[in-house]
Amino acid sequence: MAVATFNRVTPKIVERLCNAVGGDCVLVDDDSLTLHASDETEDLVFRPDVVVVPKTAEAIADIMRIATEYRIPVTPRGAGTGLSGGALPVHGGIVLSTKGLNRILEIDRENLFAVVEPGVITQVFQEAVEAVGLFYPVDPASRGSCFLGGNLAECAGGPRAVKYGVTKDFVTGIEAVLPDGSLVRHGGKLLKNVTGYNLTQLIVGSEGTLAIITKIYLRLIPLPKHRILLLVPFNSLEEPARAVPAIMHAGVVPSVLEFMERDAVEITERHLGKSFPHADAVAHLMIELDGNDEGVIQREAERVAEIVLEHGAADVLVADTDAKMGELWAMRRAFGAAVKSESIYKEEDTVVPRNQLVALLIGVKEIASRYGLRTVCYGHAGDGNLHVNILKMDMPEERWKTALDPAIREIFALTVKLGGLISGEHGIGYVQKNYMPIASTEQELSLMRAIKHAFDPLGILNPGKLFPTTEDQKL
Amino acid sequence: MAVATFNRVTPKIVERLCNAVGGDCVLVDDDSLTLHASDETEDLVFRPDVVVVPKTAEAIADIMRIATEYRIPVTPRGAGTGLSGGALPVHGGIVLSTKGLNRILEIDRENLFAVVEPGVITQVFQEAVEAVGLFYPVDPASRGSCFLGGNLAECAGGPRAVKYGVTKDFVTGIEAVLPDGSLVRHGGKLLKNVTGYNLTQLIVGSEGTLAIITKIYLRLIPLPKHRILLLVPFNSLEEPARAVPAIMHAGVVPSVLEFMERDAVEITERHLGKSFPHADAVAHLMIELDGNDEGVIQREAERVAEIVLEHGAADVLVADTDAKMGELWAMRRAFGAAVKSESIYKEEDTVVPRNQLVALLIGVKEIASRYGLRTVCYGHAGDGNLHVNILKMDMPEERWKTALDPAIREIFALTVKLGGLISGEHGIGYVQKNYMPIASTEQELSLMRAIKHAFDPLGILNPGKLFPTTEDQKL
Repeated sequence: MAVATFNRVTPKIVERLCNAVGGDCVLVDDDSLTLHASDETEDLVFRPDVVVVPKTAEAIADIMRIATEYRIPVTPRGAGTGLSGGALPVHGGIVLSTKGLNRILEIDRENLFAVVEPGVITQVFQEAVEAVGLFYPVDPASRGSCFLGGNLAECAGGPRAVKYGVTKDFVTGIEAVLPDGSLVRHGGKLLKNVTGYNLTQLIVGSEGTLAIITKIYLRLIPLPKHRILLLVPFNSLEEPARAVPAIMHAGVVPSVLEFMERDAVEITERHLGKSFPHADAVAHLMIELDGNDEGVIQREAERVAEIVLEHGAADVLVADTDAKMGELWAMRRAFGAAVKSESIYKEEDTVVPRNQLVALLIGVKEIASRYGLRTVCYGHAGDGNLHVNILKMDMPEERWKTALDPAIREIFALTVKLGGLISGEHGIGYVQKNYMPIASTEQELSLMRAIKHAFDPLGILNPGKLFPTTEDQKL
Repeated sequence: MAVATFNRVTPKIVERLCNAVGGDCVLVDDDSLTLHASDETEDLVFRPDVVVVPKTAEAIADIMRIATEYRIPVTPRGAGTGLSGGALPVHGGIVLSTKGLNRILEIDRENLFAVVEPGVITQVFQEAVEAVGLFYPVDPASRGSCFLGGNLAECAGGPRAVKYGVTKDFVTGIEAVLPDGSLVRHGGKLLKNVTGYNLTQLIVGSEGTLAIITKIYLRLIPLPKHRILLLVPFNSLEEPARAVPAIMHAGVVPSVLEFMERDAVEITERHLGKSFPHADAVAHLMIELDGNDEGVIQREAERVAEIVLEHGAADVLVADTDAKMGELWAMRRAFGAAVKSESIYKEEDTVVPRNQLVALLIGVKEIASRYGLRTVCYGHAGDGNLHVNILKMDMPEERWKTALDPAIREIFALTVKLGGLISGEHGIGYVQKNYMPIASTEQELSLMRAIKHAFDPLGILNPGKLFPTTEDQKL
C-alpha cells in the first residue's frame, strides 16, 4: 500500500471548517491543541493542526467532506482514555472530538434497548439505565470519563466480559459517517438482523479507522438484584490461575473473575494511601457473583469458596455490602493509574484461552527476567485477558530501549503460541501496530487493508494506526 | 458494478478438479447435479455444472485457485436447508459442498469452547456438548439436518435468541478460504479479541459471498439444569403481542418466547395428523423458562402466568416433562414443512423491535387482505422476528404473480417504518435481494459492494446473491 500524502490545515481550511460547523466548534488555540495531542497512552505527544467539536452527525459529514476535498487526516477522539494511542493525531491534521454529541436519546424499557450518541460518558449511561432497573454490563476501568463511542471504537471489555461479553455483544446497530461524508445506518433495536453485511460488527473495534460513529443502539438486560464479591488471596501465581478454569468447569459463571499479582496491589496501596486485606499474598482473585435470587448466589459463592480452597487459597473474604464492594472496586480500578505513577512503563494487553493463563504468566516472568525487566500483571482471568505492565524503574535509558522491543516480541510470540492474540480490549492503535505481523499473516493483513480501502480509499481517517509501518514509511 | 462474466465448467476443468481433490470428491452425474440444484427455498431449481465435496481446507483452497484461474462461479453449500436461496447455484458452475468437513475437533470443557468443522449437523453438535453438561443454545428449526457452517453463513437465529442470542453471538473465531484460495484465520478460543478488524463477525452472516468457512470456534455455556414450557392460548392477535414486552418489562427473560397464529397450528395439525391443545385459539404464545434453580424458575413461571392472564390469556398450560415439551417442540418445528405442504407460498422473515409486533401483525393482515392474499404468521415474538408466510392456495397464477411483489414491498416498507429490517435470520440470498433497496440506501449498498470486492475482486463466490439485480443484469 502506497503511503498517503496528506496536506496541512491552512487558514483557508480552518475558515471552511468554521463556515461549515460554526466558529465555536473549531479550536486552534494552543491549549486546545496541546490537550488533544495526547491520550492516556504512555507519554506520547502528536500535535494536531486544528480541533473540531461538532454537535451533529451532519456537521461531522461536513467536516469529512472538507477533509476529503483537501486530503487532510482526521483523527476521531472520544474522551482520550485509550491505551493504544487510537486518538493520537500521528499525522497532524484534524482531531474530531465527539464530546459535543453527548445525549442519551432513549432508554426503551419495553424493548430493553437504548439509543445514545457517542460522547456519552459510560458511567453516566450505566447509572441512567440502572435507575430504571436495567443493566449495561460493559465496565471499562475508565468508565468515569470514557465515552461510549470510544468503547465501541476499541470494543472495550472490562471485568464483566466473562459472563456478559464485551462492547460488541451489546451493540445491535449504528449510524456512522464514512470518510467521504456519507451517512450509513445498520441494524437498530433488533436482536436479529441479517439484512446485508454486518457493518455494525465490522465498525465496532475498528479503532476509528473505517467510520465515525454518530449514533449507537445498545441492547440492555434486567439489572441483577443481588451481588456478592469474594476476595481470595493465594501464596503462588499458579494456584489462582489453575482455580479459574476449575470454577468454570463446575458450571458457575461468575460475573467477574479478576486476577492481580502482589506488585499490582502494593503499587496501588502506595498510590492511594490505602491498605488491601492480605496485601502480602502472592496473588489474588476477585470474584463477583450476581443474579436475582440471593439464595442461589449464596450457594454459588459457597461452591466457589470450596473450589478455590481446594486450589490452595489462603482465605476467602466476602464483601456483601455496597460499601465494601465499592472499596475493592476503587482499588481495582486504580491499578492502571498506580502503575503509571510508579514508573515509565509499557503495557501489553495479552489474551489467551483461560486455561493458558498459568503458562502465560510463567512465560512472561521468565522472558522479563532474562531481559532484566520488572513486570506487573493483572487482568481479567475469567476471559484470559492479562495486562502485562513492563516497568522501566531505574533501568538506564539505553538498556530499556534495547531490551523492550525484543522482550515484547517474545511475550507476544508466546501469547500466540498459547492460542491467544496480542490485544484483548485495548486495541492495536499506534503503539502495537508493528507487532501485528506476530498475530496476522501477510494475507490477513492484506485483506484488512482492502477492507480499509473499501471504506477509506484516500486513507484520511485515523491514519498511522492498526497496520504495521511499511518499509517505505520507515524511510 | 459491472456484471461478472463467468466461464462454463469444461471437461478439462473437471479433470483439474479431480487431480486437485481426488476423483471421488468430484460429482458430475445427473442425480448429484439435480440434488444440488435446489435447497429448501420455495421451488427454485438451478443446475450446477459440477459438485465438489472436498474433505479439507487445503482441498477447498485448491478448488478456489482453479475457479479463480478459469473464472468459474462457486456456490458454497451446507445441508441445503436455507430459506433464502443462499445455496442455489444461480450462475451454474461449481457447487462446493462442505459435508466432507464434518468433524467435531474439540469440546474444551475447561475453557467452555468447541472447535468444529462446517459440515457438522447442528443437532449432533448440540447433543455432543449437552452430553458433557454444556450448552449451545442456537436452535434453528432445521437443526436435525442443517450444518453449523450454514448456520454461520446465514447467522441462524431460532427461538432461544431472546435470552441467548444468535449464531454470531457464539462464534469467536474462524478459519476460512478466500476466493483466491488463500487461507485466513481470525480469533480463537477467546472471549476478547481486538487484534485487527473483526473478520469473524463480518464473515458470519455474509451468506457465503465473502469466504468459505473451514473451521469454527464456538463459545459454550453451562447447560441449564431445569426447564419449564408454557403454552398460552389467546382469543385475539393483539393480546399475545402486547403481553410480550410486558413479560420483558417485568424483568423476566424467557429462554423462548414464540408466537403462532391459529392457521399455523391448524395447518400443522393437518400435516402431522396430531392435535394441539386449544387449537381453536386465535393465537398462542409458547414460553420457555430455564435456569439452574427449580424454585426460581417456578416463581418466574408464576409471574409470567400472571402477566399473560392480565393480558387476556384464555389459559396457561404447563409442560414440565421432557415428553410433553418434546411434543410441543416437534409441532413447532414442523410449521415450515406444514406450510410448504399446504400451498405454493412465499415466506418473508420480517424483524421489528418487539413492541412493534402488534402493529406489524395488524399491518400484514391489512395489506394481505387488500391483495386478496392469505397469510400465516408465526415466529420469535421475543425478538420481534415474525415469519410471514404468504400462501397462494387456489389463487389463479396470473393474479398471484401480479399481487405478490407489490404486497411484499408494502410489508417490507411497513417493517422498515416500524424500525425493523427485512431479514431477521433467513438471509437475503437470491429471493430477497431485489428488496434490499427498501432496507438500505444506495450508499450503504455501495459500501457493501466495496467490501465484497475487497474479498472477491472477480465476483466468483456465490454470485447473484444479496445485492439487487442491476439494470444491465436485467437485460
